[in-house]
Amino acid sequence: MTKKIGAVAVVGGTHGNELTGIYTVKHWQKNNLRESYPEFQIEYLLANKTAINENKRYIEQDLNRCFQLTDIQDKNKINQEQKLAKQINQKLGPKGNARVDFIIDLHTSTANMQTNIVLIKMDDFHLKLAAYIKLQIPDAIITSESQLMDDHHFLCSVADKGVVIEIGPVVQGVLDSVCFDKTNVALKTCLDFVNLYNQKNIPELNPQLEVMSYHSKLYFPCDQFEDINAVVHPSLVGKDYSKIQKGTPIFKTFFGENVFYDGQETHIAFVNEAAYYDQKIAMCFCNPVQYSLTNLKPVELTKL
Amino acid sequence: MTKKIGAVAVVGGTHGNELTGIYTVKHWQKNNLRESYPEFQIEYLLANKTAINENKRYIEQDLNRCFQLTDIQDKNKINQEQKLAKQINQKLGPKGNARVDFIIDLHTSTANMQTNIVLIKMDDFHLKLAAYIKLQIPDAIITSESQLMDDHHFLCSVADKGVVIEIGPVVQGVLDSVCFDKTNVALKTCLDFVNLYNQKNIPELNPQLEVMSYHSKLYFPCDQFEDINAVVHPSLVGKDYSKIQKGTPIFKTFFGENVFYDGQETHIAFVNEAAYYDQKIAMCFCNPVQYSLTNLKPVELTKL
Repeated sequence: MTKKIGAVAVVGGTHGNELTGIYTVKHWQKNNLRESYPEFQIEYLLANKTAINENKRYIEQDLNRCFQLTDIQDKNKINQEQKLAKQINQKLGPKGNARVDFIIDLHTSTANMQTNIVLIKMDDFHLKLAAYIKLQIPDAIITSESQLMDDHHFLCSVADKGVVIEIGPVVQGVLDSVCFDKTNVALKTCLDFVNLYNQKNIPELNPQLEVMSYHSKLYFPCDQFEDINAVVHPSLVGKDYSKIQKGTPIFKTFFGENVFYDGQETHIAFVNEAAYYDQKIAMCFCNPVQYSLTNLKPVELTKL
Repeated sequence: MTKKIGAVAVVGGTHGNELTGIYTVKHWQKNNLRESYPEFQIEYLLANKTAINENKRYIEQDLNRCFQLTDIQDKNKINQEQKLAKQINQKLGPKGNARVDFIIDLHTSTANMQTNIVLIKMDDFHLKLAAYIKLQIPDAIITSESQLMDDHHFLCSVADKGVVIEIGPVVQGVLDSVCFDKTNVALKTCLDFVNLYNQKNIPELNPQLEVMSYHSKLYFPCDQFEDINAVVHPSLVGKDYSKIQKGTPIFKTFFGENVFYDGQETHIAFVNEAAYYDQKIAMCFCNPVQYSLTNLKPVELTKL
């Protein structure tokens, strides 16, 4: 028999400059979202308060890359975010045997990622959650990061069940009405699903689910001083999830010359994402994979 | 006889997270913009290197508010940006008797400010500069901050002549092709004007110039905990320089209710600007004023 979900944590401010999640958490803390969901516990967490106060993504290291078991158990990992990860693991976890059953972590992107639902496990619960979200929010994009690592480094991996809700585009350090509304709709849809899951009352879902799967990154061109010397081609800005192929203009140099893509056909995402400039990442590459909800596996690589 | 302009400083990174100016300065430092302008000196400055390295607007205080004479002469003003302002004043100034004749300071905005040319003096040189820019870039907006204070606090006030080129919208910490191109066009137009000014060869200019003049700010509504509890109304986002009047929906609360504007008719700018969230400023109010290039004065307040 499937265990009911008793405790849900709604997390904002894992990245300190993503105001939407921070203000959504503050708003519902004060205004009792719990009343709508009396059958399970909802708790709230502003994850990186120092970074929130400084309006920065992180102080020393991206907190949302600190939750691999080997890292939270490593006594030598003591920078600000590594220590914070251990505290959060104590509070919501410990990972592997967590007090909290389900973590919903609220993020934003400066890229046109729309309502992006990021999964790090592709089991029955998570695939049904995603399919239910697609039913309620047809333009939501489902993304899998499960294939990237066995023990995931996201905060939401502390609980047995976890999801990242990531909405874009919105500027860092800014509240935007559209982004705020989309975040709240996606959050409520996840909580509605928990109710239905607990009540064994999940409606009929599409048996097949398209999931974006990341496979690589594209870095900015740089000069001999390691300074970026080109911008993402204007024809690609805002075109997240679209397809590029050999010959697509991909960068424009500071002198105004086009640089053309020379790799295999792929879809693009996180196009010109502000948070990735520290690593000089211009965009990420992904492709859609069809998952079957009945055998929980990718059924085939979609032809590009 | 008017003194020729001998030395121009092009400044980027006065705000450390406005990448366009920073990369424009780096690009032209390496690639000799000077060759196109052999008749005067061009020097380059990345103003706030610590803030640039941290990808933050500033460390302790907004550097572009530190250049009033009373402040740069005050020995008790020793925070990071106040000290930096004194150094920059030594390097380019001193203010009142500056080595550099003309400072062009490159900025960006997350609001839809387009090509915004900000003047802090409304004398013959600056009005002609602005009118020349309008001739070359018809959709440029000319803004005056000269009325806000007698001794201005902007970095570009260190020289006798100064201008801020501010382009938006662009996300902080990001390079955008459109924004980069607009910045470079506006910069070259300013340098072209210096050539024409030195050669006494300024073309015929429109004798009247519309200038946006700021008169007040609008703050976000907050709850009892001093937390913002509403977003800028989505109908106003991106609508910088448009007009609002009594009854215009101006905010939307986190509960989704409209808040209506209840003041005098005015134009709006810096709508939902990320850099102003630290002061909880939702937007600024301004109105167009017509300046005459012949008597250097506002001719009348334009009827709204």
